[in-house]
Amino acid sequence: MNQDQVKQLNEALEAVKGHEIENIYFVACGGSKAIFDPAQYIFDRESAIPTFVFNANEFIHRCPKGLGPKSLVVTCSHSGNTLETTRATQLANDKGALTISFSFKVDSPLWNATQHPISYTWGPESDPGDSNNGMLFRLVFGILNVLSPNEKYERAIKCCDELGKVFAANKEKFAESAKAFGAKYKNNKLIYTMSSGPCYGVAYSFAICLLQEMQWVHSEPIHSGEFFHGPFEVTDADVPFIILKNYGKDCDENVKANWITEYGADYKRPLVAIDSAIGAYSDEIDGETRVLDVRAEAFCNRFSEHVIPVDCNEFDMTGIDEDLRKYFAVLVAGVVLRSYADALAYHRGHPLSVRRYMWCMEY
Amino acid sequence: MNQDQVKQLNEALEAVKGHEIENIYFVACGGSKAIFDPAQYIFDRESAIPTFVFNANEFIHRCPKGLGPKSLVVTCSHSGNTLETTRATQLANDKGALTISFSFKVDSPLWNATQHPISYTWGPESDPGDSNNGMLFRLVFGILNVLSPNEKYERAIKCCDELGKVFAANKEKFAESAKAFGAKYKNNKLIYTMSSGPCYGVAYSFAICLLQEMQWVHSEPIHSGEFFHGPFEVTDADVPFIILKNYGKDCDENVKANWITEYGADYKRPLVAIDSAIGAYSDEIDGETRVLDVRAEAFCNRFSEHVIPVDCNEFDMTGIDEDLRKYFAVLVAGVVLRSYADALAYHRGHPLSVRRYMWCMEY
Repeated sequence: MNQDQVKQLNEALEAVKGHEIENIYFVACGGSKAIFDPAQYIFDRESAIPTFVFNANEFIHRCPKGLGPKSLVVTCSHSGNTLETTRATQLANDKGALTISFSFKVDSPLWNATQHPISYTWGPESDPGDSNNGMLFRLVFGILNVLSPNEKYERAIKCCDELGKVFAANKEKFAESAKAFGAKYKNNKLIYTMSSGPCYGVAYSFAICLLQEMQWVHSEPIHSGEFFHGPFEVTDADVPFIILKNYGKDCDENVKANWITEYGADYKRPLVAIDSAIGAYSDEIDGETRVLDVRAEAFCNRFSEHVIPVDCNEFDMTGIDEDLRKYFAVLVAGVVLRSYADALAYHRGHPLSVRRYMWCMEY
Repeated sequence: MNQDQVKQLNEALEAVKGHEIENIYFVACGGSKAIFDPAQYIFDRESAIPTFVFNANEFIHRCPKGLGPKSLVVTCSHSGNTLETTRATQLANDKGALTISFSFKVDSPLWNATQHPISYTWGPESDPGDSNNGMLFRLVFGILNVLSPNEKYERAIKCCDELGKVFAANKEKFAESAKAFGAKYKNNKLIYTMSSGPCYGVAYSFAICLLQEMQWVHSEPIHSGEFFHGPFEVTDADVPFIILKNYGKDCDENVKANWITEYGADYKRPLVAIDSAIGAYSDEIDGETRVLDVRAEAFCNRFSEHVIPVDCNEFDMTGIDEDLRKYFAVLVAGVVLRSYADALAYHRGHPLSVRRYMWCMEY
């Protein structure tokens, strides 16, 4: 972090210290909204404080009654020009909430609207620990440490300094997979994405920003727990699914078998996704949604010839503490998938920077 | 309601009265999860109590720290056999939460797992006020009335008795539109849906249950506020969008113009979606997300030749009090869209009851 960032982050955390917080709203649009998804997951796991993620325009018009002087509202816009996000921040101010906002651009409308702006760096030359994701993780674990001081959160904040190395190692590790993906799927008009838990936001932004916005490829970010209750009926040999498997332990076959015996024939299916909620086993993978993704992958492998797994367990997480890897793997997944998008763009001759509507006209 | 339903609902509400409730989790899968979406919206608008909607398997594995003895967990499964939902209910019991569950089938696993089961009716012969949606609305407004007694909530509960008539009137009113939709889109392999606010859940279930599950048509339920931050780049002349426009007031052009003047050229775009967050106008359409849907529709109309609007303002809402129509319109939208799906199924020669994986195998 540069000196400005250190100061901005500290000031924001000091404000959190001085503020009674009953709930937290993460509010933004599109890709900036997606980065808040793991933040909500982390809060759900580490704290009982209610947290919500809203599209900024939904937030403005829904204007939840829970929004008030005891709210913390965290917003983000890369340009700082996103009107809905700026207005949402102003609305939060009007309601007496504490507002903290991330923006790449200093002195943007969002920057001037918020009480506590935090800048982030961007681009190949910058340290990923100081990017939007890195600064958000510093804030999230910083807030948790304010609310309930814990050495774990202090370690997490330090892990943000390792992101540069971790990202570089995994970009290299998955370079060949990315190239192969780009070459193989350059002609596909529709590619689904799928994940759950902390990684769902990455599947979401890959579908709506990388595929739909930047490649004009049809997509849908499917929640791997919802997959079996509707979407899976579209599965066919020629339908591609990118399945982002969360970091975590894999299911123990013995426990599964015992569980089936215990609960009887009514439940006799491959219970990969759900058998962990019982007995001793539940503690072991409590808080990990990997089993949902694995179950979806197993199904897709039976009926689609185009399953593209991206497995957080294969990431090189050197430098990140074991108990924090399930959270930090989310950020690595974003970087790895970005290289998949780069390769797709290259093979399609359609740069990620091309738009036909965004920035080209008023809407 | 039959006598059993009256008794079940009253017992559930009595239990809510006797329980200190700090948060509410609505937990289910697929179509049953989707019906909870408007419930969360209603709570966000009418109460400061934090409410969440989770896929059941996500809920089990995320196991949010906020879940505890002061939680109310509401679950639903049509068959009562959905394993994830049953396990989620058991988990909630284990954590000391109050559990209430909806199921069509009495004495199902879910029925036996929950503390307070509520049955609902189903099918063409039954009264829609006693269906899953109707019973849920009775519970939602019943809980609100317990937490903060209000004649509005009593009126809302009475409105549930009108649903049969309202549904019938609108099925008839939109019969021709439904037929035309089915005939025109029978050959489309991909149809997007879009909505926001209270109706988003209907767009979600139409995409994942009606189109993907029951018609094997590719889809994605796009949030109309998110549309402009990614998905809209796939818009093209031949891409169909079903746009479900929420019930509400339309934007006042004069206010829009004033707002643009006030905020200057930086913001000079057609601000249909966002200009309501200011001044006197904000009170008037506070709590209505229609403007988001209208903005998305206006954009689609410029670049797609296949915009299919379903407009809640055109519904015959006779019998429903004006201040409650934005909530009840959600249920009517579900019924109208169901008739669109029926017509599509007819013209495609693909009955809504056909499945290739669901119920056909273990997974």
